[in-house]
Amino acid sequence: MSKKKNFLDDSFLLQGETAERLYHLIAASCPIIDYHNHLSPKDIAENRKFENLTALWLEGDHYKWRAMRIHGVEERFCTGDASPREKFKSWAGTAPYTMRNPLYHWTHLELKRYFDLDVLLSNQTADHIYDACNERLQQDDFSTQSLLSKMKVEVVCTTDDPIDNLHYHQEFAKQSASFKMYPTFRPDKAYTTVNPAAYNQYLDRLSTAASTNIQTLPDLLAALKKRIGFFDSLGCRAADHGVEQLYSGEDLIEKAEPIFRRLRGGQATDREDRLTLQGAVMLELSKMYHEQNWVQQFHIGALRNNRSKALRELGPDTGFDSIGDFSQAHHLAGFLDQLDRAGQLTRTILYNLNPSDNEVFATMAGNFCDGSAAGKVQWGAAWWFLDQKDGIEKQLNTLSQLGLLSHFVGMVTDSRSFLSFSRHEYFRRILCNLTGTDIDRGELPRSQEWVDTLIRNICSENAREYFHLKS
Amino acid sequence: MSKKKNFLDDSFLLQGETAERLYHLIAASCPIIDYHNHLSPKDIAENRKFENLTALWLEGDHYKWRAMRIHGVEERFCTGDASPREKFKSWAGTAPYTMRNPLYHWTHLELKRYFDLDVLLSNQTADHIYDACNERLQQDDFSTQSLLSKMKVEVVCTTDDPIDNLHYHQEFAKQSASFKMYPTFRPDKAYTTVNPAAYNQYLDRLSTAASTNIQTLPDLLAALKKRIGFFDSLGCRAADHGVEQLYSGEDLIEKAEPIFRRLRGGQATDREDRLTLQGAVMLELSKMYHEQNWVQQFHIGALRNNRSKALRELGPDTGFDSIGDFSQAHHLAGFLDQLDRAGQLTRTILYNLNPSDNEVFATMAGNFCDGSAAGKVQWGAAWWFLDQKDGIEKQLNTLSQLGLLSHFVGMVTDSRSFLSFSRHEYFRRILCNLTGTDIDRGELPRSQEWVDTLIRNICSENAREYFHLKS
Amino acid sequence: MSKKKNFLDDSFLLQGETAERLYHLIAASCPIIDYHNHLSPKDIAENRKFENLTALWLEGDHYKWRAMRIHGVEERFCTGDASPREKFKSWAGTAPYTMRNPLYHWTHLELKRYFDLDVLLSNQTADHIYDACNERLQQDDFSTQSLLSKMKVEVVCTTDDPIDNLHYHQEFAKQSASFKMYPTFRPDKAYTTVNPAAYNQYLDRLSTAASTNIQTLPDLLAALKKRIGFFDSLGCRAADHGVEQLYSGEDLIEKAEPIFRRLRGGQATDREDRLTLQGAVMLELSKMYHEQNWVQQFHIGALRNNRSKALRELGPDTGFDSIGDFSQAHHLAGFLDQLDRAGQLTRTILYNLNPSDNEVFATMAGNFCDGSAAGKVQWGAAWWFLDQKDGIEKQLNTLSQLGLLSHFVGMVTDSRSFLSFSRHEYFRRILCNLTGTDIDRGELPRSQEWVDTLIRNICSENAREYFHLKS
Repeated sequence: MSKKKNFLDDSFLLQGETAERLYHLIAASCPIIDYHNHLSPKDIAENRKFENLTALWLEGDHYKWRAMRIHGVEERFCTGDASPREKFKSWAGTAPYTMRNPLYHWTHLELKRYFDLDVLLSNQTADHIYDACNERLQQDDFSTQSLLSKMKVEVVCTTDDPIDNLHYHQEFAKQSASFKMYPTFRPDKAYTTVNPAAYNQYLDRLSTAASTNIQTLPDLLAALKKRIGFFDSLGCRAADHGVEQLYSGEDLIEKAEPIFRRLRGGQATDREDRLTLQGAVMLELSKMYHEQNWVQQFHIGALRNNRSKALRELGPDTGFDSIGDFSQAHHLAGFLDQLDRAGQLTRTILYNLNPSDNEVFATMAGNFCDGSAAGKVQWGAAWWFLDQKDGIEKQLNTLSQLGLLSHFVGMVTDSRSFLSFSRHEYFRRILCNLTGTDIDRGELPRSQEWVDTLIRNICSENAREYFHLKS
Repeated sequence: MSKKKNFLDDSFLLQGETAERLYHLIAASCPIIDYHNHLSPKDIAENRKFENLTALWLEGDHYKWRAMRIHGVEERFCTGDASPREKFKSWAGTAPYTMRNPLYHWTHLELKRYFDLDVLLSNQTADHIYDACNERLQQDDFSTQSLLSKMKVEVVCTTDDPIDNLHYHQEFAKQSASFKMYPTFRPDKAYTTVNPAAYNQYLDRLSTAASTNIQTLPDLLAALKKRIGFFDSLGCRAADHGVEQLYSGEDLIEKAEPIFRRLRGGQATDREDRLTLQGAVMLELSKMYHEQNWVQQFHIGALRNNRSKALRELGPDTGFDSIGDFSQAHHLAGFLDQLDRAGQLTRTILYNLNPSDNEVFATMAGNFCDGSAAGKVQWGAAWWFLDQKDGIEKQLNTLSQLGLLSHFVGMVTDSRSFLSFSRHEYFRRILCNLTGTDIDRGELPRSQEWVDTLIRNICSENAREYFHLKS
Repeated sequence: MSKKKNFLDDSFLLQGETAERLYHLIAASCPIIDYHNHLSPKDIAENRKFENLTALWLEGDHYKWRAMRIHGVEERFCTGDASPREKFKSWAGTAPYTMRNPLYHWTHLELKRYFDLDVLLSNQTADHIYDACNERLQQDDFSTQSLLSKMKVEVVCTTDDPIDNLHYHQEFAKQSASFKMYPTFRPDKAYTTVNPAAYNQYLDRLSTAASTNIQTLPDLLAALKKRIGFFDSLGCRAADHGVEQLYSGEDLIEKAEPIFRRLRGGQATDREDRLTLQGAVMLELSKMYHEQNWVQQFHIGALRNNRSKALRELGPDTGFDSIGDFSQAHHLAGFLDQLDRAGQLTRTILYNLNPSDNEVFATMAGNFCDGSAAGKVQWGAAWWFLDQKDGIEKQLNTLSQLGLLSHFVGMVTDSRSFLSFSRHEYFRRILCNLTGTDIDRGELPRSQEWVDTLIRNICSENAREYFHLKS
């Protein structure tokens, strides 16, 4: 804490020259492999320009809506029928109240890196910023592809449902962009059975997508396998799942068949049934991923849609999810072990939402590393609520202490926003700071070459190697 | 860690000039709204003077007893029949062994702020300190009201049972003291049914207090409603509950009625019964709080009375409670959602005792902020075992990262002791330190005005606005 | 972070002069009472010399195997039939990838303290280090007893099964070594009943060891009591248990009897049965420990043998265990309370593996301190995965905030390796750093004498007093 700094200056988040050197000389120039996000393939393929900053910054950003609601902003200024300028000004009025929240850093980092604006967002500066940004958004270098290129993005992997026709992925593949875009297979709806009617509707759409007729569990699995082949043909090398808990057990497929049949007949299920079916489908999918040599990702532990009124009125993913406290270790071990015993455990990344599970996840991954690939099963980057300074530091420190930081595949934005790529900078500064201050404290050797390699690997190289993506 | 400091000097807990400026220029002069404590209304209304330091410092202080027992002190010197001086000397001999425990800081801060004594407590200094303090305690400026005034207390909210006649609140209201005192409604006994005999006795006393005859669950609720009205008439604006877990579910009232009837008939209940009744009564109470526009507080997760021998011999709240590891998220969400769906969720503060639940609580609060009030549902200050430097820092940091620190209603003593008000200083120093060092590290802007406001709000203004207390 | 340091220099882990003074003047010279480890009594009694560094450093070290597997090293270079030199080189190639993991610190601290080698281990330096160490290992001052003496070890307590004849303890007792060695009673197999055949085999061996015939539960308890007497006669003053969870309940013995009888008849049991029997046997053992005035230790919360293929091929304790997320508080309280009520709770150390349970364990211990001995029930040192810089700091800080650091019995290696004793240095540096920087920040008084005593007590004196070991 020797010298005083200015907000967001060059040495932001970097304490001492070693950390600064690592960031500016090594990390800053590494390309970005954003192997998991929720960007719109359509927006990318069509190289969309955004009509205004509200469209780019606030539409679909439930982080900001949530902050606005906590600040006391009415719903119409978040998701309602207020004008884009009104919505922007509501956010601008909230911004100063987000001090110490990651939104405060992200907001100003994005204004600075994308728009060259070095102004604090508030009621006072709202109109100026809104107008200045909107003007730039009309320029060619603010199209989606330009925004990504500007950040040295090399690959983006979007998140796509098995029923998706991947039309925009196909369109984009024909273009000669400066980066690659690949789909990720996200089949959560194939085993989400709380609402039998919605589930059957989904199965019908999947039947169509796979040109088949799904009546039995084997039918479902065959359809999914077809779609996996299709996704693979467009460069997909990873699947992703989001569940409260994994589930494991003996003879899951046998137990799941009658449950599936009942569901297909429109009958309701209880919690145990739902977990059995989820477990059976996921287990079989995991075997298919292994066969395809894909990476599988599991995002575990969110407690979603807590405010049922908001779910009814606004739908899911609108800012009413939180961190759950489910038991994780037993079934996590059981699930991975079932695959491992069968010789069908592919490379796997485990993400937890409750930081109280950090150590469980960090150590669980190590159990299933069998020497066949560096970091074969690994604990993933700080996710969602945890993707902030404290959360990232905890993940990096716990991973370091309980596993091997060296083989970490690093940061992902997991974001819907084209402005989120400065979060890679944010992550890298934290990484360089932890490593650099360790060196200055004598806890790591001052052997430049090795540490430089470590940083470079975590920024880009580990992910490149781990995912086998064509770049 | 640039310059070396002396113990408890002016810059105690403050690293760097920015933090020091924030504390000394802003925080130190803010009045105290102590919106939750366990002070004795009788002691305040009667403006009690304490016969000696043992009476003021050790009677009822189960934190100190606990430390003494860990140190190997016999029970008779904690709660037994030893003389006041003997008890004090036992504590004095323990004090040096509490280094790094909050008791060490609190003890010396209290000696310094209240008694102007800058001496380390130990066997050697025990007699000197005891005699010096006892002398002062006889002076007028050491009466309870003087002790509170000295600390710039503006409001204190005590904790009172529905059956309490609030006599001392009425007496105090007639005085022209420099601060206000209001009751808080704490109806835990109205749904604590482990011991049916004790429960029935309580219901009888509540019947008397409410001038009614409680035979059915609706009778109970009507009686509680009456008492809420009475509490409100004396300025009460908040309720408080202490439970292991919240409980939610469909048709709780219907399920609870026969359980209540059986209890009233003296029959025992099982754990599920007890939770059902607790859930039903709390849900109905919460609706009444909403109607009154009160704040409701939930203190969740203590595992109490672990040493049954001590419970039998010394009673509850004598230092044998600890931190539980109950599941919280599911029912916490369910309880709040049931009220929200009904449009009857009032302003709510959630306190957890297990810090592993910090992130669950911090994010749960955000789900139920609907824009109707800033920080409508919020995560409360570090409580009990967590009300110490690490615990406070974790609460402030996690709240910052996962919610909006700006709308935090801040610190409460939650204490039985008239000397605990220097803990507001302790909290404020930590708050100013976190904020000030953020500024010095370039993680917050150096825009004085805004940060000054943030500090002032958390110290006093947010609580003032949130609780609608008359001051 | 004022001055830059070199890796592992004299001020390693020490920030500021106060911390350095505390370590170098006080802590460094304190003898080591290693009251819990897994050293081989045979290797000590026979004063073994190791044929090569692989035998000393890699055999049985599942921490290193685990890191190697994460790094992508094949099993034959970990536990398989590769040559000692090949295995060593595989580890050497992994070492640079363990940066920020405790293995990196331990490895280089051990090379420096035991072999005077100040070289970073890597592929490049592997042969040089291997040859240099192997040469020294043939010298007399590298025998097991010399290695321990070099580290100022005063006592080591090994971990021994009730059926062990303690032959090597008896042999060693006849020698005039510079340190003492005592057994610890570890009877986990006496209530581990997942595999009835294995359990019965064990009971047969215990029958032989105790010269009795175990047919009933009382027979088992009588046999164990005999063995406790035998262990005690050889200086044993402590027992140790490793379980996922403790278990408590009414009439456990009565419930356990028919379960035991069924097991003895070869029948399988369910989870509840197994917990009941475990609870019953442990409760009775705890009473015997109390009678003998022993210390009892409980290592709680590991989830073991997660990779079943590895368990089958390599056996237990080979690097496939991880951190579990079991509920702990309820039964932990119940177990200790049952003993306390009976007046049969002996001095007890509780170790948790999941750091999310830190606060539960830290506060639980305090409930059962009855003033009869300083720190009677206490929360033990950071264990296994947590025995690293972050884990140690968290344990020390949480213990400080929620209990009394002053009465902590301090560090144990819990290790199988004769080179692990530099971890006491590691722990002590962290302890001195936390305390020293507290003083420099004005959070502890600069009263030398008292803090010196605190350090000395935690390094050696508290353990000496607590365990009543003859030294």
